[in-house]
Amino acid sequence: MIKRIGILTGGGDCPGLNAVVRGVVHASILKHGWEVVGILDGFEGLVHNRTIPLPLSRIRGLLPKGGTILGTTNRGNPFNFPVLLPDGTKEARDYSQRVIQNMERMELDAVVAVGGDGTLGIAHKFCAMGARFIGIPKTIDNDISATEFTFGFMTAVDVATDAVDRLHTTAESHHRVMLLEVMGRDCGWIALYSGVAGGADVILIPEIPFDPDAVVGKIKNREEAGNLFSVIVVAEGAFPAEGNQSYVSVDPVTGQKRLGGISQFLAEQIQKKSNLEVRTTILGHIQRGGSPSAFDRTLATRFAVRAVDLLAEEKWDHMVAYRGGSIVFVPLEEGIGKLKRVDPDGEMVRMARNLGISFGSGS
Amino acid sequence: MIKRIGILTGGGDCPGLNAVVRGVVHASILKHGWEVVGILDGFEGLVHNRTIPLPLSRIRGLLPKGGTILGTTNRGNPFNFPVLLPDGTKEARDYSQRVIQNMERMELDAVVAVGGDGTLGIAHKFCAMGARFIGIPKTIDNDISATEFTFGFMTAVDVATDAVDRLHTTAESHHRVMLLEVMGRDCGWIALYSGVAGGADVILIPEIPFDPDAVVGKIKNREEAGNLFSVIVVAEGAFPAEGNQSYVSVDPVTGQKRLGGISQFLAEQIQKKSNLEVRTTILGHIQRGGSPSAFDRTLATRFAVRAVDLLAEEKWDHMVAYRGGSIVFVPLEEGIGKLKRVDPDGEMVRMARNLGISFGSGS
Amino acid sequence: MIKRIGILTGGGDCPGLNAVVRGVVHASILKHGWEVVGILDGFEGLVHNRTIPLPLSRIRGLLPKGGTILGTTNRGNPFNFPVLLPDGTKEARDYSQRVIQNMERMELDAVVAVGGDGTLGIAHKFCAMGARFIGIPKTIDNDISATEFTFGFMTAVDVATDAVDRLHTTAESHHRVMLLEVMGRDCGWIALYSGVAGGADVILIPEIPFDPDAVVGKIKNREEAGNLFSVIVVAEGAFPAEGNQSYVSVDPVTGQKRLGGISQFLAEQIQKKSNLEVRTTILGHIQRGGSPSAFDRTLATRFAVRAVDLLAEEKWDHMVAYRGGSIVFVPLEEGIGKLKRVDPDGEMVRMARNLGISFGSGS
Amino acid sequence: MIKRIGILTGGGDCPGLNAVVRGVVHASILKHGWEVVGILDGFEGLVHNRTIPLPLSRIRGLLPKGGTILGTTNRGNPFNFPVLLPDGTKEARDYSQRVIQNMERMELDAVVAVGGDGTLGIAHKFCAMGARFIGIPKTIDNDISATEFTFGFMTAVDVATDAVDRLHTTAESHHRVMLLEVMGRDCGWIALYSGVAGGADVILIPEIPFDPDAVVGKIKNREEAGNLFSVIVVAEGAFPAEGNQSYVSVDPVTGQKRLGGISQFLAEQIQKKSNLEVRTTILGHIQRGGSPSAFDRTLATRFAVRAVDLLAEEKWDHMVAYRGGSIVFVPLEEGIGKLKRVDPDGEMVRMARNLGISFGSGS
Repeated sequence: MIKRIGILTGGGDCPGLNAVVRGVVHASILKHGWEVVGILDGFEGLVHNRTIPLPLSRIRGLLPKGGTILGTTNRGNPFNFPVLLPDGTKEARDYSQRVIQNMERMELDAVVAVGGDGTLGIAHKFCAMGARFIGIPKTIDNDISATEFTFGFMTAVDVATDAVDRLHTTAESHHRVMLLEVMGRDCGWIALYSGVAGGADVILIPEIPFDPDAVVGKIKNREEAGNLFSVIVVAEGAFPAEGNQSYVSVDPVTGQKRLGGISQFLAEQIQKKSNLEVRTTILGHIQRGGSPSAFDRTLATRFAVRAVDLLAEEKWDHMVAYRGGSIVFVPLEEGIGKLKRVDPDGEMVRMARNLGISFGSGS
Repeated sequence: MIKRIGILTGGGDCPGLNAVVRGVVHASILKHGWEVVGILDGFEGLVHNRTIPLPLSRIRGLLPKGGTILGTTNRGNPFNFPVLLPDGTKEARDYSQRVIQNMERMELDAVVAVGGDGTLGIAHKFCAMGARFIGIPKTIDNDISATEFTFGFMTAVDVATDAVDRLHTTAESHHRVMLLEVMGRDCGWIALYSGVAGGADVILIPEIPFDPDAVVGKIKNREEAGNLFSVIVVAEGAFPAEGNQSYVSVDPVTGQKRLGGISQFLAEQIQKKSNLEVRTTILGHIQRGGSPSAFDRTLATRFAVRAVDLLAEEKWDHMVAYRGGSIVFVPLEEGIGKLKRVDPDGEMVRMARNLGISFGSGS
Repeated sequence: MIKRIGILTGGGDCPGLNAVVRGVVHASILKHGWEVVGILDGFEGLVHNRTIPLPLSRIRGLLPKGGTILGTTNRGNPFNFPVLLPDGTKEARDYSQRVIQNMERMELDAVVAVGGDGTLGIAHKFCAMGARFIGIPKTIDNDISATEFTFGFMTAVDVATDAVDRLHTTAESHHRVMLLEVMGRDCGWIALYSGVAGGADVILIPEIPFDPDAVVGKIKNREEAGNLFSVIVVAEGAFPAEGNQSYVSVDPVTGQKRLGGISQFLAEQIQKKSNLEVRTTILGHIQRGGSPSAFDRTLATRFAVRAVDLLAEEKWDHMVAYRGGSIVFVPLEEGIGKLKRVDPDGEMVRMARNLGISFGSGS
Repeated sequence: MIKRIGILTGGGDCPGLNAVVRGVVHASILKHGWEVVGILDGFEGLVHNRTIPLPLSRIRGLLPKGGTILGTTNRGNPFNFPVLLPDGTKEARDYSQRVIQNMERMELDAVVAVGGDGTLGIAHKFCAMGARFIGIPKTIDNDISATEFTFGFMTAVDVATDAVDRLHTTAESHHRVMLLEVMGRDCGWIALYSGVAGGADVILIPEIPFDPDAVVGKIKNREEAGNLFSVIVVAEGAFPAEGNQSYVSVDPVTGQKRLGGISQFLAEQIQKKSNLEVRTTILGHIQRGGSPSAFDRTLATRFAVRAVDLLAEEKWDHMVAYRGGSIVFVPLEEGIGKLKRVDPDGEMVRMARNLGISFGSGS
């Protein structure tokens, strides 16, 4: 029987986190009479026993607010916890037992872990040790394979689409190539959705390595047809198919290729290979802050209330997911390890090609 | 072999219609080299041969624009076409043969009908007569059972949620009950989504007839708990469970109960049964105009391009639909006749109840 | 020497009130070390001694929030205070001495009154009795003659303009007349600004009594020129030049003519005198709620900080005002009694006429 | 007597340019019956005789659209016109006589030049040669001294303020320093307004050279007071008071110090001098694109219609300006040469300091 639960938010900031916190607190207290404890700064708070109480009064007005009142961090994996030694160096320690002891000491009957691949993976490892965790998937990148949508994604797409709309008017007025770099890590979802929604001419995503010559070719074709401007949306993780390897770095964790400054590389290539003016905008963190859209508030709230059902059913090691219009329960294992990437031959990409959008590749 | 197609938009205005027109034209011309003809004012244009050409130049900049450049109307069913007689009276005639002749005369190999239940039903009847129609579902009400989402719906929800947010601040500042009436015809989807997204205290929908006393009871409970304000979202089609029948009219076409002035009725009831100030806002047509959201632009565009695939595959009497994250083809018959209504015992309603939201009913 | 001040908000809700409260608290504490007390629900709080402390922690995150954390009311004039008698009737009493005593008892060295004509007028009367008040003008109607702009006005105009934009697309798609009723009480500023910004065809304001025939004439002229739709913005206080007196009521306080349901009257007139479909939207309270625009947040903050300067200079019976790009100090007397109305022969109206906008009058 | 006028837009893209074009066309045709010719790409169009006709049908729906249908460019000063020689080198020629001849050949009785300092200065030089120009001031930077506001500015401030709001939630959630670089060239208006409206902790503007240590000091003070995050808005033209000269370049035209990568410099300084994580966003071109706000649409329209009055009164060598709530006429000379900069001791800066905002300087 549950009496008291904890909730933590891990990984990058994401619109809808506060809506999740509110939903979990509301349903826990109103439906079940449980007490809810807010764990601060992700798993770090479980290592260091840093918490706040979450009564109903604490969550008033929280639904539309961006960010997370619990704080969040990308560091603090208890299985690999960075510790500062007296001599100033850092060492990674396994603090997982400490977390389990802290959960007992805090009398937490279970913990709701809200986060992406990393956070959910840690929760899953704790479940394997007998701890009681459930998960709520969170990422603006929409790259979790177990769920059709994650909250935060459509808000990021809204922000990016608004930027594409704005750049369009400048592109047209100045006969320029406007280049917008959006987030998405190793997946092209934000670029693909905002590029389609904003009517971009070229969309570059990590799933389809691009050829700079093909991009320039597309722009020149448009020019010859009387369109003296072009708008390009490039995902931060996009990279050229070959050559130019100096722009590519390898992610030490995943072993995947990563780019620093893909939009700068691309702008230089276009300016070198055509006589067109290029202007670059890196949209950055404004994609992950601010009030969640109605879609994301609803999704976050549904996830939250169903997560409380998961707790009530004591289905540890599970997470909520959105599939076919419903919220379903899936094992945490399904939510981790495997990225949901854009299918280069799937419906969305084929559709975009049929609209005349170029992905900077031959096919 | 298709050479030339028509496209028409029927029923109420809806954000994303222009995005559909653009998508169909783009994919038809770029992918297949077809000519596209715009039929004006829904089926009326097929009766009276009123069309415009739709070359690529005509659709430039159309994606983000609200409304439909083709015009639309709720009248003009060719099977039951209103004709003005010389004596000033009106008579309904069957002009369906005329439509089929016109399609031949205009050399239209097929027609894309974009509309709701009514428009899709007419297209289906024409297919039974051998004409070549395919459908794209459209409604801000999201009440078409064959598809999880229709474009326009989330934009309407965004507008309604923004209104709930705004009314919240006035409700709090003035210790008032703020009542917002939203659209949705006989379904409560817009009310349910915007009510959940906006954090409403009471949501009233046609699928759950309400008891005014239960609404007042909820408000009074909130007052006793120190919340001196409440926000109510009421669907235009909501109605009281019993009595007060004078506020209910019966729709002559569907035979369904309809309400005039549900929000006025409700405001009077609350003011009579409590000592609280009530302020009413009827959101009206601003829910169906304006630029579509990124979600709706993407969905409308996917529908459009996939509809062109439907044409290329010559799957007449079918429509596109959104299911499980993909665009699928379903027989037109599945899209019509049966409304997709909110399930009073479904996940969304149960979730909302778990959040403490009242539906004005005992359970 | 000031040690402790109070702040109250009176009259209708208005975007920017919380920004004012935040600004006054910030500048009072950081610049002068004063204590700030929040008086609840306007002057009612001074009658009944209802206050909250306002330390820096209380105003964190308040700047972008709509509404007022102090509460506000249109009732509660201490010179004419409504008292409920034991027999259930109401009586108006003069509680002004009680307010002055309460200010002493609460050790308030001065009070900042944030409000419109009514609130500022009460503050001025208290000053005449020797009490220390200063004023900050507030109204979404922008009708205070002493200041070029009041905060809240441009946010209301933004909301109304967004509605005009949305109605435009429906008007065009359906060949309809769309009618939008906006706020503004006895002044046409919101209608004029949002009508010009939204590209309305007809703007009806209280300062220019209109002729329904002229409105219909304008719509018909547009129709003949091929524009099968029209958008009308009508101020809530607009009224017909003659006849139709049954729609007009006389405001008991000001003696001015007031209309109930001006947009309903107008819609009926247009439908009777033309064969056009008319759809009406009454925008209502969403104009006065929600997060203030950047313009209003800046103006509210400037007013607030300069009001603290007013206090420091001990210029009682004065208010802040915006003139020629600067915040200036003017006697409270200048801010009250005289409405700033739209000049029917002024630049704004002449400009609008030059654009082809009709005001429903002959000239 | 005027029969035919031209209009051109010069300099950077700016929300409201299309509203100006629409207003000039509307008032010219409807009020005076003049013909209006659109000159393409600023003064370049006058050198090369590149124009489009501007009948009423051409400007339909133009009011809310961003950008300019006339095209614009920062190049093309006819007094110093870049010409490509056969050998591939460029040479600057004086094409001013050619412009005057072209105006005659095109039978333009006068030209409306819409632009900033540069464009208005060229128009003024042509007036000295006897040509008939009037000006409409345009700049998102709000740096033209003759007018209190220019259109485009408040839209840029809206976009920047929305970004500050979004970064705030990430700053809080991650306990980070978020740094936002905004436009404004050599003036700090966009930074100052959006910083105040968004509640920034530090605002850095070109008018107040900053000390990196003072910025870090402010952040550390906040940390000690329990505020583990800070938001900094930095104008693109801001620069450090001394040292770090390698980051400073000198503008060849104005001789003023300019910075490349001020936000990068600042981020490095903060990270070096504190242990805080810093994240940088360069807002870029999304500040100058997109639909103008209601304020800017109204201002642009007023400027446009009054500019037509200027033409009708044949007051050549003048421009329109916004002062004290009215549109006035001032000699072009007043609009050029002298930047309107933020007064480091003026009301706005003093107000911001009273709110606790740091400008990175001692005083």
